[in-house]
Amino acid sequence: MSQRASASHQPLPNDIWSRAYPGSTKVYVQEQGVCVPFREVKVSGGEPAVRIYDTSGPQGVDVRQGLPALRQRWIEQRGDVDRVARTFALEQHPEGALVPQGLRREAWVGQGPVTQLHYARQGMITSEMRFIAVREGVSAEFVRDEVASGRAIIPCNVNHPESEPMIIGRAFHVKVNANIGNSAVLSSIEQEVDKLRWATLWGADTVMDLSTGKNIHATREWILRNSPVPIGTVPLYQALEKVGGKPEALTWEVYRDTIIEQAEQGVDYFTVHAGVLLRYIPKTAERVTGIVSRGGSIIARWCLYHHKENFLYTHFRELCEIMARYDVAFSLGDGLRPGSIADANDEAQFAELKTQGELTQIAWEYGVQVMNEGPGHVPMHLIKENMDKQLQWCHGAPFYTLGPLTTDIAPGYDHITSAIGAAMIGWFGTAMLCYVTPKEHLGLPDRDDVKDGLIAYKIAAHAADLAKGHPGAQRWDDALSRARFSFRWEDQFNLALDPVTARQYHDETLPAEGAKVAHFCSMCGPKFCSMKISQDIRDAAEAQKAAAEGMALKSREYQARVAATEVTEAIKEG
Amino acid sequence: MSQRASASHQPLPNDIWSRAYPGSTKVYVQEQGVCVPFREVKVSGGEPAVRIYDTSGPQGVDVRQGLPALRQRWIEQRGDVDRVARTFALEQHPEGALVPQGLRREAWVGQGPVTQLHYARQGMITSEMRFIAVREGVSAEFVRDEVASGRAIIPCNVNHPESEPMIIGRAFHVKVNANIGNSAVLSSIEQEVDKLRWATLWGADTVMDLSTGKNIHATREWILRNSPVPIGTVPLYQALEKVGGKPEALTWEVYRDTIIEQAEQGVDYFTVHAGVLLRYIPKTAERVTGIVSRGGSIIARWCLYHHKENFLYTHFRELCEIMARYDVAFSLGDGLRPGSIADANDEAQFAELKTQGELTQIAWEYGVQVMNEGPGHVPMHLIKENMDKQLQWCHGAPFYTLGPLTTDIAPGYDHITSAIGAAMIGWFGTAMLCYVTPKEHLGLPDRDDVKDGLIAYKIAAHAADLAKGHPGAQRWDDALSRARFSFRWEDQFNLALDPVTARQYHDETLPAEGAKVAHFCSMCGPKFCSMKISQDIRDAAEAQKAAAEGMALKSREYQARVAATEVTEAIKEG
Repeated sequence: MSQRASASHQPLPNDIWSRAYPGSTKVYVQEQGVCVPFREVKVSGGEPAVRIYDTSGPQGVDVRQGLPALRQRWIEQRGDVDRVARTFALEQHPEGALVPQGLRREAWVGQGPVTQLHYARQGMITSEMRFIAVREGVSAEFVRDEVASGRAIIPCNVNHPESEPMIIGRAFHVKVNANIGNSAVLSSIEQEVDKLRWATLWGADTVMDLSTGKNIHATREWILRNSPVPIGTVPLYQALEKVGGKPEALTWEVYRDTIIEQAEQGVDYFTVHAGVLLRYIPKTAERVTGIVSRGGSIIARWCLYHHKENFLYTHFRELCEIMARYDVAFSLGDGLRPGSIADANDEAQFAELKTQGELTQIAWEYGVQVMNEGPGHVPMHLIKENMDKQLQWCHGAPFYTLGPLTTDIAPGYDHITSAIGAAMIGWFGTAMLCYVTPKEHLGLPDRDDVKDGLIAYKIAAHAADLAKGHPGAQRWDDALSRARFSFRWEDQFNLALDPVTARQYHDETLPAEGAKVAHFCSMCGPKFCSMKISQDIRDAAEAQKAAAEGMALKSREYQARVAATEVTEAIKEG
Repeated sequence: MSQRASASHQPLPNDIWSRAYPGSTKVYVQEQGVCVPFREVKVSGGEPAVRIYDTSGPQGVDVRQGLPALRQRWIEQRGDVDRVARTFALEQHPEGALVPQGLRREAWVGQGPVTQLHYARQGMITSEMRFIAVREGVSAEFVRDEVASGRAIIPCNVNHPESEPMIIGRAFHVKVNANIGNSAVLSSIEQEVDKLRWATLWGADTVMDLSTGKNIHATREWILRNSPVPIGTVPLYQALEKVGGKPEALTWEVYRDTIIEQAEQGVDYFTVHAGVLLRYIPKTAERVTGIVSRGGSIIARWCLYHHKENFLYTHFRELCEIMARYDVAFSLGDGLRPGSIADANDEAQFAELKTQGELTQIAWEYGVQVMNEGPGHVPMHLIKENMDKQLQWCHGAPFYTLGPLTTDIAPGYDHITSAIGAAMIGWFGTAMLCYVTPKEHLGLPDRDDVKDGLIAYKIAAHAADLAKGHPGAQRWDDALSRARFSFRWEDQFNLALDPVTARQYHDETLPAEGAKVAHFCSMCGPKFCSMKISQDIRDAAEAQKAAAEGMALKSREYQARVAATEVTEAIKEG
């Protein structure tokens, strides 16, 4: 794969979408007063075009200017937010100089709760809901119902008007999150924005910015202004940077200021490890892999050091009050998730999940949207219990899991070990799957790893949609299957999740252009093709049905047809 | 991946095993009078070595001489076979000149049934069974019981004494089959033998030779003489070659002669599409993708052309008589398996499965070992029904499935779409999984594709072993997880399914040798590592438990520990 070697540190070209999806067009469907993007694949053979959910956002935009503010008018028209100068103004910020003029924005803050949950409860159908209704192929009223009940969330901070609304809930398409973020070891701001564009190109429905190194404020600003999808963060990481990297030096005040800083920038959901309680920590001591969540271990260290209850738990209501005024959603972290097959579904993990349920109800009191994070590493036979308990204990709030990995023996291939678990838990009802790349446990993913992880997870999510019987999901599979059966090679490539790779694999064996209209493929060759033979059978069966004549005659007819076909084939091949 | 570009058409080096598994040793365990190979990984940190099932066979053998005949003495000692000149003697065979002297063997034929099923029913524990008992970590009596009941098979033709015995049954490790074979379009004999060595290197438990082009007799001879794993074929393909590629010209006599030819060579199992009955064929006419099995479509065409019942069905008892005298097992083909999500679990598919059940019982009458082939393309929610019906209708005989693929939208990634289905159906009870490579539906797999397919399927099989609670399966995961938690990087690499890739991915981010002993990794960097922090927590918890003192004191102690750790870290980093 020459791609892998060359693509890693070159800037993405402006026309990357058309290069990734040749034979597809980006279309905007105007319905219900909104304008919703899709990837449209024209199909030959008299078949209708296929429209595919598209997360890539507007293309060809100058990253120093950012995306158009699609939702700005909707937010303003609701009349419940005030324009304010940012508490952490870029002008005074030490990293401010890294943010070009074109990306600088003022902030909004709600006069009260300005969450989609708040609106939905009041019976209001927002423009965001209508956008989602068109995108998902359901009614706007249904979207409103699911949000009002807490079964689905629409992460959309009023300070991230660039985002194209999307919904996370088990009655909708299963979503995929990709993690990006510089670490202490590598990466630059431009690379991070390119990672975002690359991730959304391949179908990331949300992106988490897990940066922990230098310039994380500026990096986040660039990312938010250029992101068509909701952005999630773990504010604890930045708070920790502020106290010099010492968990025990963390305070509620530092944390609170950090979430305000990030809410003003436009972060759409926060991972908050409020369920890691002091009394649960000793439950991890006997584990094979202890605590593997960064956030969980930071909090655990803080709790043990001070011998006090987790400050995120004790200040949870204050958190809710703040987040409600920006519409930042909770992603309640699973700081005690298992880090190995051996530790799956243990007491520590489930104790925290129960507390997540308690916190879910408190957030709902304040009108804040909530989803719950889940594992991790779980063998197949223990996966369903995770979903069942989450549904029961967390009152139907959306579940958001990392994989889970179904075995630990394959470092280098954990996109596959975890796609298995992800597909299954998606079928069981998980609303969003956090992807895992081949580099998991080993190193930092490069561009190819991000793509490999996303493709594996789009497969898992779509397989889950099919298994759930999501309306319309199978149309895509059927269109591709019909193209395959009819040897419409170009349609097969164009309809593929990754058209360029599909074409390249075909061409490695049969490069000639003629092979793409041939009624056979490289696996069997012309004489031997099972699809060709069964096409003959179908023709014969239809002929038989029409004629409804005697057995002997049918057989003679079929022989005549076969003979005629062979003459035709001989002419074609000759 | 520079590997992909360069490795494709170069001969495999002789020391390929040590290159693929540095840090592992091939050991032979002597127990119960047999000598059984394992891959052994020495682990540091005072932990016991880990022994892993190994399919690669003897290494460093001259492919023009073939492997040592491990089972020859066992077969001879049973005293129930006669040495005979081959019906299809290489000397007279048109392809004979392609087989070097060192690979030429006489044939054996049983005086009566010489199958492991036959022996097991008589209460006999064969050397093959003892070999398997050591390999699987169970008692030889248990192996005998499973074989006697038909719930497991040991494919081991008396003319393939080079094979290392293995078992296919749901009470044992889930197995993986890899397909190789030249096609009309590409490939050479040497390449095929290299593919075999490559496939067994990466864990193929059996290999199917699906060659359809020229020199298939000679290619098969090379493969059998060099194969440490059972070889399966679809004899129909060669029979078709013999009649000029016209399905309607096939006769029972040509087919019978072909299976004798292949049984004399040593093929261990035959895929036989005897369940494709004339009356089932019209049931496929309304399908989205008709008949996609090559064998199924050839038979269907024959049936329709002649308007007669499938000759494999009508001559099934004669087939059984022949196969019993060589111990060739049946792999009852699923000629009507679904070729798309749309066609899964339909009437045609299940009609054939019922007939497979009927044929299973007939084969058992003759003492012939049997497994049943299954789909194909099945969405997740329909997978279990396949397993349940097969268990019920086929009387507990082993199930052997191709995937199944859980969606059709991802050509180029069908090793992943199908690993999901394979893992699930393996958990539900499928005994062997036929792998799918990334090239499926598109082209012929090269060396990297074969490896990618096998790794995906070894993951699926092992995930299934874990979920089934297979005794000992989790030891491997636990050893790797403990190495991960203790930052024993070398142990992690060495224990991995693919050690070289794991190490390479690590080194891409942190190439320095020092990083492999560092107590952190590239994801979080030194200050931030969750595993490091939770190691501290574990230490603290243990200290607390031991002391059982007052809260305040504990906290002070912990603070002292943390301070001490930091000093140490500072020294290390500095």
